[in-house]
Amino acid sequence: MTGSLVIAGLGPGDAALVTPEVTQALARATDVVGYIPYVRRVPARPGLTRHETDNREELDRATHALQMAEAGRHVVVVSSGDPGVFAMAAAVFEAVEAGPKAWRDLDIRVLPGITAMLAAAAHIGAPLGHDFCAINLSDNLKPQALIEKRLRLALEADFAIALYNPRSRARPDGFGHALDLMRQICAPSRVLVFARAVSTPEEEIRVARLAEASPEMADMRTVVLIGSSATRIIARDGAPFVYTPRSVPE
Amino acid sequence: MTGSLVIAGLGPGDAALVTPEVTQALARATDVVGYIPYVRRVPARPGLTRHETDNREELDRATHALQMAEAGRHVVVVSSGDPGVFAMAAAVFEAVEAGPKAWRDLDIRVLPGITAMLAAAAHIGAPLGHDFCAINLSDNLKPQALIEKRLRLALEADFAIALYNPRSRARPDGFGHALDLMRQICAPSRVLVFARAVSTPEEEIRVARLAEASPEMADMRTVVLIGSSATRIIARDGAPFVYTPRSVPE
Repeated sequence: MTGSLVIAGLGPGDAALVTPEVTQALARATDVVGYIPYVRRVPARPGLTRHETDNREELDRATHALQMAEAGRHVVVVSSGDPGVFAMAAAVFEAVEAGPKAWRDLDIRVLPGITAMLAAAAHIGAPLGHDFCAINLSDNLKPQALIEKRLRLALEADFAIALYNPRSRARPDGFGHALDLMRQICAPSRVLVFARAVSTPEEEIRVARLAEASPEMADMRTVVLIGSSATRIIARDGAPFVYTPRSVPE
Repeated sequence: MTGSLVIAGLGPGDAALVTPEVTQALARATDVVGYIPYVRRVPARPGLTRHETDNREELDRATHALQMAEAGRHVVVVSSGDPGVFAMAAAVFEAVEAGPKAWRDLDIRVLPGITAMLAAAAHIGAPLGHDFCAINLSDNLKPQALIEKRLRLALEADFAIALYNPRSRARPDGFGHALDLMRQICAPSRVLVFARAVSTPEEEIRVARLAEASPEMADMRTVVLIGSSATRIIARDGAPFVYTPRSVPE
């Protein structure tokens, strides 16, 4: 009995952003595994078992998925966004490396998805239109000092920056520290985009200059985009456009 | 007559990676505009005019698209990958900002797509599974000194890094310089992934340690992924998996 394991990205929320490749993998799955709200995005149907797990149980979830694939099931691990960006793909490969040798020979595939920063950028213009970074502000899995070092060097390099997981109830202060650091390095006119619940009915996108930004503008459903020093706002009736020019003059 | 302008990402090549949102936009377009090979990915049909333009004419192409939208056409500007990542979205907004005031009130939308680095990462495992950067190595639009500064700071910050446009016939040396810089900062065991023509029938993915890497491993169809210092190779029969763990220990 030959099973398979697919780690699939569901995109940020809108069904029109799920790739056909992912839709096809879900159609042939026997089991879907993931964090509760993501699993619930996959409609129930006969022959499909949906395994909902709590957050912060990524390694257990990955191990369970691998065991089912080994037993011959067709398992899809679902992530929001792209599974390779602060999501389940790395957790599955950690489990593969630590697990029995036979797991390395399983049919394992990662299917990319639209990650939050790219959907957020698209919905406001092209703020990541030049070199950029993605930094996870959560200190669950890395030291706060490393977060600050990376953010400082990324600002010195004048990248546009996407901040994932900027702030949560358990970590109310991280994003405030990031703003403090930005104020040491960037001009008060630096452009920020706060994109909340992108591509869902609750989507809310707010543009602010650094001088007006405050920690409360971000929550656990927000991705924050920090422009480079060249990022521009195009004012218009309604929401502005924000973009980063392709050129940097000599 | 109310026209519209959509800047759409076709993904890296495979039709199964084109989002339904983009497919719908193409179905209602009167005009498709873009670089020749991307426009040819959109099938001809009655009522659709396909405007093929050469590379390096991004601003002219953007202006033409805006003029047609202003005249009431439904125009889709197509990019490979994601239009906000080293592609057409920024060029369109440059043209909007420089153009007549009326262009700001046009119905302009950007539709995200699967960008090459995320498809490449998915096809080899999860090498971008932690904080990462995207750097365009082309010096067409920015000074070489800025490229080297950004790469140096990104390596010091220990990001995983995706290099777009690492090498072309017109720029044979840029990627060699990048390798030289990496050799000053990184251990010889640093993991690199050379992903060529991702998700097309010509896809070729090669994993190499820095000590074995050479400039010829990259060409204009390659995206190069540089692991962080923590990136690991899982050996197996056939192609290995490459991933970056989610955690960085204190």
